[in-house]
Amino acid sequence: MDFSKRPNGMPDEQTFQFTDIELDKPENGEVLLKTLYISVDPYMRGRMSNKKSYAAPFEVGKPLEGGVVAQVLASNTAELQKGDIVRGTLPFQTHLVVSAENVSKVETNGLSPSAALSVLGMPALTAYFGMMHIGKPQKGETVVVSGAAGAVGQIAGQLAKQVGAYVVGIVGSEEKAAYITEKLGYDAAIEYKKGDVAKQLEEACPNGIDVYYENVGGDIGDAIWPLLNTFARVPVCGAISSYNLKEGEKDIGLRVQQFLIKSRATMQGFLVGDFAEHYKDAYAFLAKGVTDGKIVFEETIHDGFHAIPEAFTGLFTGQNIGKQLVKVADAE
Amino acid sequence: MDFSKRPNGMPDEQTFQFTDIELDKPENGEVLLKTLYISVDPYMRGRMSNKKSYAAPFEVGKPLEGGVVAQVLASNTAELQKGDIVRGTLPFQTHLVVSAENVSKVETNGLSPSAALSVLGMPALTAYFGMMHIGKPQKGETVVVSGAAGAVGQIAGQLAKQVGAYVVGIVGSEEKAAYITEKLGYDAAIEYKKGDVAKQLEEACPNGIDVYYENVGGDIGDAIWPLLNTFARVPVCGAISSYNLKEGEKDIGLRVQQFLIKSRATMQGFLVGDFAEHYKDAYAFLAKGVTDGKIVFEETIHDGFHAIPEAFTGLFTGQNIGKQLVKVADAE
Repeated sequence: MDFSKRPNGMPDEQTFQFTDIELDKPENGEVLLKTLYISVDPYMRGRMSNKKSYAAPFEVGKPLEGGVVAQVLASNTAELQKGDIVRGTLPFQTHLVVSAENVSKVETNGLSPSAALSVLGMPALTAYFGMMHIGKPQKGETVVVSGAAGAVGQIAGQLAKQVGAYVVGIVGSEEKAAYITEKLGYDAAIEYKKGDVAKQLEEACPNGIDVYYENVGGDIGDAIWPLLNTFARVPVCGAISSYNLKEGEKDIGLRVQQFLIKSRATMQGFLVGDFAEHYKDAYAFLAKGVTDGKIVFEETIHDGFHAIPEAFTGLFTGQNIGKQLVKVADAE
Repeated sequence: MDFSKRPNGMPDEQTFQFTDIELDKPENGEVLLKTLYISVDPYMRGRMSNKKSYAAPFEVGKPLEGGVVAQVLASNTAELQKGDIVRGTLPFQTHLVVSAENVSKVETNGLSPSAALSVLGMPALTAYFGMMHIGKPQKGETVVVSGAAGAVGQIAGQLAKQVGAYVVGIVGSEEKAAYITEKLGYDAAIEYKKGDVAKQLEEACPNGIDVYYENVGGDIGDAIWPLLNTFARVPVCGAISSYNLKEGEKDIGLRVQQFLIKSRATMQGFLVGDFAEHYKDAYAFLAKGVTDGKIVFEETIHDGFHAIPEAFTGLFTGQNIGKQLVKVADAE
């Protein structure tokens, strides 16, 4: 699937183009892969603009790429065998030939291979590092997570609960509110579409806010700042509300400086890749959590390669609960 | 001098009231002081509102208080002798009787006693901790300081120069631009009243910004965020542009989240008191810098107790170069 046109505002059908391609046979060091699951993620919207950022912009007319789990159909390297499940940041194609260096074999601990893109993948690592290395919640502290039912938020809140924090999630629907409180163990849910977020936050957080895990930005962030406690921490993971601004539009709202001074709070932007040296420990922690039943998760799976555009744009309308994925094929 | 009315917006003559008071003789443990210098500082504006913040609001009808340097006229404690110079956070009065516990004796190393409120006082400590403990500039990095000719900014920029950073100051007049480049050693000055700050910053900072020492907020902060480099640090010391907003007005501008994510930058609000355990080292560092001629500074001194209102309100119109003080009396 190619990236066909830079969107101005929300991506639509013109953003994507399906094309047929011919594959060569795997040469020395290469593998032929069949794609099983494709990850669509909000950060991809940033790569659709041509502004300089931490990841290079997608090139128009070239394939989209992102997180992919695939199965080896044929291997021309000793490192990988036919049937192996691998993960990589790869072009979105139903089949592909890549150097074995561009993928890594994954163990899914008895879970579906899709887990390598969700609870044992990038979103869960992002939740882990943002919460544990930046947010650093303590027992009894109040932690608020926005996008709380999303791919990252569903894990972030559970990690804070595990250290004994009081955890409040902000979500966009009653179904999501039920999910985070009943399944994930959040102490309270705020539905931002149901009236004044600032007022709901005051009620849900009578002791103020010690950690705010920021996934959404916009009015929700603005409602948080006045409630930050002394030495609060704000890991800034995402600001999805602003990703589809049109050319020239700016993300305007409450400036944070006065609130940071009053609370002596710290806001820190981060990317999962900044913590690469800790991946191994984090994977082990997450895998054990899943095995022990201490970490639960959801995936919203759209079926078929052609569902990529819908799955991707649905991220911005809050369609998904948990990690949004596209299932392309079953493993053999 | 009493605080007579909470200002709505910029403080004016109604904010302040001069009153005559009678002093008792110093009792056991107390001293009679003659005020020499009074410090007026932007943070005092926060205490004039009745909102909860890190310092309790001033009470209407009670004396204003702040940084004071005074001389002991009579002592009823062995800890202090007649003639000693002391500093404290004290009511603004020409003379006062206080417990010796509320003041500390200062050594001014041959400088005017006013130095205990400027280069050997709170503003210089604030510059030191914000720059060295949060900003942590490295050799060759680009550091931008707003309010660069002010009480804090004049020291902050020199500290960054001492570690070999390239230092750009933002100021409000040609005179201040000359001061910071010619006297303080800043590499470049930007006059924010002379056109587009974003454009001037891009020209002055071709390698982006690694540390932004925030004193002013507003449009100037907004112009900084797009230029932050990877892992930039933003010590948030003040946001003077927003201190005189009227009741109900909000400080609206560019939201920072996307910029923090792109640059993986950290913004941290702080107060000088958060670093109390390091005061001794910082004082020693600053005193040595002044003695060695490595740290220079200016004070803008208004003469006479009655100049307090003018000196204070002048902070918000950029009247001062260096530390703004009011001289009340000479030492004996």
